[in-house]
Order: sequence, then structure tokens, then C-alpha cells
Amino acid sequence: MKMKTIEMVQLLKVESEKHTIMEDMVIAEYPLTIFLNGDEFITLLCSPNSLEYLVYGFLKSEGIIMKKDDVENVMIDEDKGFAHVTLKNRNPLSEELFGRRTMTTGCAKGVTFYNVTDTIQLRPVQSTFSVSIDDIWTLSKRLNSESELFKLTGGVHSCCLCDSSEILIMKEDVGRHNALDKILGEVLVKGINLSDKMILTSGRVSSEMLIKTAKAGIPIIVSRSAPTALAVKQAQHLNMTLVGFARGTRANIYAGEQRIV
Amino acid sequence: MKMKTIEMVQLLKVESEKHTIMEDMVIAEYPLTIFLNGDEFITLLCSPNSLEYLVYGFLKSEGIIMKKDDVENVMIDEDKGFAHVTLKNRNPLSEELFGRRTMTTGCAKGVTFYNVTDTIQLRPVQSTFSVSIDDIWTLSKRLNSESELFKLTGGVHSCCLCDSSEILIMKEDVGRHNALDKILGEVLVKGINLSDKMILTSGRVSSEMLIKTAKAGIPIIVSRSAPTALAVKQAQHLNMTLVGFARGTRANIYAGEQRIV
Repeated sequence: MKMKTIEMVQLLKVESEKHTIMEDMVIAEYPLTIFLNGDEFITLLCSPNSLEYLVYGFLKSEGIIMKKDDVENVMIDEDKGFAHVTLKNRNPLSEELFGRRTMTTGCAKGVTFYNVTDTIQLRPVQSTFSVSIDDIWTLSKRLNSESELFKLTGGVHSCCLCDSSEILIMKEDVGRHNALDKILGEVLVKGINLSDKMILTSGRVSSEMLIKTAKAGIPIIVSRSAPTALAVKQAQHLNMTLVGFARGTRANIYAGEQRIV
Repeated sequence: MKMKTIEMVQLLKVESEKHTIMEDMVIAEYPLTIFLNGDEFITLLCSPNSLEYLVYGFLKSEGIIMKKDDVENVMIDEDKGFAHVTLKNRNPLSEELFGRRTMTTGCAKGVTFYNVTDTIQLRPVQSTFSVSIDDIWTLSKRLNSESELFKLTGGVHSCCLCDSSEILIMKEDVGRHNALDKILGEVLVKGINLSDKMILTSGRVSSEMLIKTAKAGIPIIVSRSAPTALAVKQAQHLNMTLVGFARGTRANIYAGEQRIV
């Protein structure tokens, strides 16, 4: 890919009394507009790598496609920032319901899934996969040390798919949702089984992150930072394992501790 | 407001060999669906405080309203998570163009504004306002120490509006865009002049943050963390001052250094 995920900019660095004009690296932010069979659908702001996987993962997460074969073709126009997607099996209902909230559910109380498609698609995750807390700490440390773009720019989130001992796929992006969708897209294209895998993320676990992971059938999500209360409730409801603040030899297990041995 | 921005959850805390079942605070995440004259418009995931300001600020940032008087009434239904907005002066063009990308601009090169409404509304910021780097460090430290929800939960971003010596308005939210929109909403409702103010944020400065600030006519944006390359280019183009990594006695000035004395 010829596009740069990092760009050089000139800046004035101030340290106490000292001023220096210098060049430094900053993270690129790239608008990618997805067209579905010619119609403009959405613009994502992302890091310009793994764009085809991002498209597959985003469309799968949003319920627009269910399997790789629902897509006939993805053509990325890097200069224009366009992704032209030809859908084979088009589901007009999903496109119409995209982003539409479920109106029947109270929202300030209990568990809530505010998207219509989520309400339809979400089922509790059935998986007896388990990992040890030591493995989680080791993998979390590795995610941190392998996060190249973050070290260079401080401007991205990193996310990886692991089994109990190895990082299988790792992605970085200015948006933590995009990093996860890039993984889910690669998984969809390559046909990887997810019932014995887990997601590690550098970012907070919001309800959107939790639901993307649950929809993909991944039983465990681990973060180096905080979850939201809604994500905790949804994890309990969906039989997911949710671990937060996994740093050094500490971790908080918010749901599904039976999978942590 | 009766809704809670923080909720208690039960969790299993692991520290090396030690396991403890305990209760801890996590940040709430609240879906707020905005209706415009009865039609569903968008659902924001936010922290449940300053919701009316969030609605005003979001609609202003997105170009749906220009002034306070464009809104006849905002009715928040906290239980359902609904904001019913009655618009006086409805601008069907803005609603139709909402989120729509400018098709004529190349995106991988140079400065790009990918929203049609941004292209129409954005003008270089005219302001001779200036602050000292010492004031920026002092205010940045204060933002950090006053960020209550972050200290309790680690799950929010904080954002404030300052003049050269004081924090005037401070908001916290699970989303850094929401925190900024809450400020811009309060500003709109109270009629505060912005040409001699600056925004301080704990979060990264993406193009969306930069453009929200520029549209409001605020000449300076300061962050404790990184900007994106697109935000740097836009700041230069819009005559904005963009400061990143403002921590302790360090800062990087990416654009508009004439306003930092």
C-alpha cells in the first residue's frame, strides 16, 4: 500500500524555556467513503492500512453482510478515499435499519441494545474456551510492545486477536472501532474460527466494542483500560468474559470469570 | 438530574496471586436519541449529564441550527433516553446533507473537508487572542486535577473552555466529541463570545475535534495528547492554533504559534 499511516509535520517544540523548530511524526487520518452498489453509505475516518479488511469488517459488524460471499467485489480508490463495494446478496432491510434505534426498550434501566439489528442478531456466546490470567498478562504486554504506530505518534489504538498463547492478527487505527473491524474483516475473508479466540484492545470497552465482539462470537474481550457500565451489563447478559485494566500483574474481571483459570 | 454518570458493578479483582470480589465504580454510557420535529435523527452514546447542552451543541456543530433561536423547545425524556427537539427554523438542506461527504475534493492529498456543510461554513478564524505557554501549562494541570469522573472511573474525557487565566466551563463525557459539544451547547444557550477563548481537551485532536472548534470560532485548541496529521493541516489552513502534548512544562505547537507568547 502506497499510502502513509504516518506523516511528518513541522512543529515548535517547547520545553520549559527552550524552543526548537523540528519535524516530528504524527498519525495520518484518512476519510474512506464506502459506496454500496453505487450509493454513498458512510464515511469512516481511519488509518490508511488494511482498508479492504476494514470494509468487510465494518459491513459485517453492522449486519449489512453476513458472510464473505455476500460481497462480489471491493475496489479501493486510494487517491479519492473511496471503497466501491458490489454486494451480491443485498439486504435492503439491514441497510434501511442501519443505525436505527430499537424504540421498545427502556434505556436508562437494565440491559439495552439500542440497535434494531443488534436486537435481532445478538445471542449469548456459547463457548467453553478458557485462558489463564498469566497468559492474558503476557499477551497484553506483547500488544503494548508491538504497537509501533502508538510508540511513534501516540495517536492510535491497537487491537489484536489471540488464542491462549499467541497474537494471531494485530491492527492499529486512529479509531478503536476501526482496529477491531479490521481484525473482524480479515477473519471473515480468511475464514478463521472465533469460538476459541479472544480480543485484546488498548482502548476502553464501550458498548459498541462489546457488541462487535459478541456478534462475531468471540467469548473474551480484554482491555488495558476501563469498560463502561453498559458494556459490563451487556457482557453479563451475553455470557461474555470482560476483563479491564489488564496491566502488569493486575486485572479486573467484570463478567464471565469462569473462562479465566 | 437524577441519572447517574457513575454506576457500581461487582467485579473480581486480581493482583498477582490475590483474588478479591469487590464493588467498584464504572462510567455510565447512555444512549440519547435525538428527534427533530418528531423524526428520529441520530443516537449519541454519552455520559448522562448536560444533555440539553449536548443536544444544542451537537445540532450547532453539525450545521442543523445556527443560533439558539432556531430551536423552539428541547424536551429530554430521561427514562427513555429521548431528546425531542422542536425546530423553529428548519433547514431541510442541512438535514439532508448531514454527514454527506464532499465529492469534489481529493482526500489523500492536501487539506480536505469531507463534509459538504463544513465546506460551506468554514472560514479561517480571525482572532488576535493570545495566551502565554505558562498559562496553558497551568490550565492543563488544573483540567487534569479537576477531572473527577476520570479519577473515579478512568473511562471519560474531559474538556474545558478557558480564557487566558480561568476555566469557564468544564465537561466530561465517555466521548471526547460529546464533551466538546456540551461546552458548545452551553456557550450557544448563554451567548458567550468565543473569539478570545480556548479549548483544552484530555483527548486526541482528530479532524472532527478541530473542525468543531474552528466552526465555533475558537482560535486555540490545546490537548494533553496527540493530534492527527489531518487536524494539523486543517489548523494551518483555518488560521487556528493547535497545541499537543501539553504536559508539565512541555508542549508541541503544530500551528498558529503567533498566538502563544
